[in-house]
Amino acid sequence: MVGIKDVARAAGLSVATVSRALNGQSAVSDGARAKVLSAAETLGYRPNVVARSLRTDRTRTIGLVISDVLNPYFTELARSVEEEARALGYSVIIGNADERADLEGHHVRSLMERRIDGLLVSPADGRSPTTLDAVSGPTPVVFVDRWIPGSDAPVVRSEGRGAIRDLVAHLYGLGHRRLAVITGPAATTTGRERVEAFRAALSEFGLSLSDSHVGSGDFQAESGRLATEAFLDLPERPDAVFANDNLMALGALDAIRDRGLRVPDDIALAAFDDIPWFPHTAPPITAIAQPTAELGRVAVRALAGLIAGEPATSTVLPAHLVVRRSCGEPDPSSPTGGATRE
Amino acid sequence: MVGIKDVARAAGLSVATVSRALNGQSAVSDGARAKVLSAAETLGYRPNVVARSLRTDRTRTIGLVISDVLNPYFTELARSVEEEARALGYSVIIGNADERADLEGHHVRSLMERRIDGLLVSPADGRSPTTLDAVSGPTPVVFVDRWIPGSDAPVVRSEGRGAIRDLVAHLYGLGHRRLAVITGPAATTTGRERVEAFRAALSEFGLSLSDSHVGSGDFQAESGRLATEAFLDLPERPDAVFANDNLMALGALDAIRDRGLRVPDDIALAAFDDIPWFPHTAPPITAIAQPTAELGRVAVRALAGLIAGEPATSTVLPAHLVVRRSCGEPDPSSPTGGATRE
Repeated sequence: MVGIKDVARAAGLSVATVSRALNGQSAVSDGARAKVLSAAETLGYRPNVVARSLRTDRTRTIGLVISDVLNPYFTELARSVEEEARALGYSVIIGNADERADLEGHHVRSLMERRIDGLLVSPADGRSPTTLDAVSGPTPVVFVDRWIPGSDAPVVRSEGRGAIRDLVAHLYGLGHRRLAVITGPAATTTGRERVEAFRAALSEFGLSLSDSHVGSGDFQAESGRLATEAFLDLPERPDAVFANDNLMALGALDAIRDRGLRVPDDIALAAFDDIPWFPHTAPPITAIAQPTAELGRVAVRALAGLIAGEPATSTVLPAHLVVRRSCGEPDPSSPTGGATRE
Repeated sequence: MVGIKDVARAAGLSVATVSRALNGQSAVSDGARAKVLSAAETLGYRPNVVARSLRTDRTRTIGLVISDVLNPYFTELARSVEEEARALGYSVIIGNADERADLEGHHVRSLMERRIDGLLVSPADGRSPTTLDAVSGPTPVVFVDRWIPGSDAPVVRSEGRGAIRDLVAHLYGLGHRRLAVITGPAATTTGRERVEAFRAALSEFGLSLSDSHVGSGDFQAESGRLATEAFLDLPERPDAVFANDNLMALGALDAIRDRGLRVPDDIALAAFDDIPWFPHTAPPITAIAQPTAELGRVAVRALAGLIAGEPATSTVLPAHLVVRRSCGEPDPSSPTGGATRE
């Protein structure tokens, strides 16, 4: 069994310095830390983190609770969180809430009990008592993408209001008047905001959103399919459907294809969240692109700052509309506002 | 601060029973366990798992190290692992190796140090010393999807050889003779096996695989793009490309579109891994479907068995070909073998 003394001997440093370096304390030069890590790696030294974490404060690990590991938006977020964390010397362990409030609470509690240095969370439930409890505890917490209104933790998120207005203008310009939306859960900030922004933009164009044109989804594919089937069963089906995330758009595509209908000829479709598959679908899907990777990086830096005792900083980054062909062929001479065209 | 005595009082049970229930020991009835968990939840009782895990053996947590959190195949696998684990009373924490051998070692080490009851791993590197070390240690390990040849741990995986032969027969029947492949890393079992099975199937049809028709990928999208660009630069470009996972197929689609070419008219494309976007791409992508969710469930049951002291069981489940339109319009009267047609 390799011990800390062996590592100290191999690194040519004192046991105290090796201990400080392995515990992630700052009173160690970068050069010494590199020597220690290299010696520990070569010798296969495996400290007992569980025992060690009772003695020191730092684990150099952060927790990330995402809402749905099947959602490409969240997996891209998770990857950028990991890349930035690694660059700052942290490792990341991930819990998946699967859009369920009880699982969110479970993962937050479980990660906190494992002594992480900080937590990034995108709440599946905007009122989770466990998550609120975590925010008021000693471990730093940063919300990313979604948040719990009224809580103290900093929030790193994107703002889609302007892009949603651009989308409604685009749909209106193509002659669509009966517009429908598939929402995320009302318990999430993003779920509420996207439908509210859509409703506000419609009213700017003199349109209203009838109840039968609001489908309640849960940000997962099956709910998008069910909501779309209900729209297609209406006596007057909508001209266009706005799915409030990429997986509900997938469910909508499934439902439309199963009826033998075509996008955009029979019904137009747009999505919140842009993903790499959308340029390749038939037709390519018009979508609102979030700065996902940037959100992950900024959230990790905010959390690392909190861990280091710096003040909390919230950040809002803008989303933007990417026009493709799923709502109809746009007039090439029309202004795009903040949108890009592919 | 709520203590274990408060939970015992609320549940109407002895402290010893509550302690056994919270430590996941089996000598507690399901009814008692349910009472304890309900009382603990109501009171907001938060045991210190770190301290507790020094006293008892069980954490009711398993670790899952996947190769790439951005790959829809692995996220579907992760979700089925979580669902089955939850049904058996375990929670899951996930580490993402991002197809890097060093990160795989890091996550395996880090999860082992956090005292998990067992580990599921899909190795990014078929020779990882850290993972081999874990297999020979006291914590149960099960390989899922990929494995390390010659190691003792049970393997739960799918077998694609028959489906790859069906794919080559399908391509051959459509008149394609110059066939190319984008491989995964040679350090992975799946990377090696898919290209070997493809080569063997080609030779059955009297075809050979020239070196210029083998693109080295890493199971991530960018490598698929680069390999496809190299194919398109050849004096005689291939008739068809077989991308050995879904993300490399995405990269291939990007490269083909950027050249202004069309699938399948200019070049045919097929993928290993079927994902929910493939029926919606232009054209829909012919793919080899793995029983991904079933793999995750079987792997969790094998791991739970090992944890309970049962003997190790390996499982191989067959993959099958799903014919769509990305290799050409198939003759509707031709036999499909084990393939399905959409």
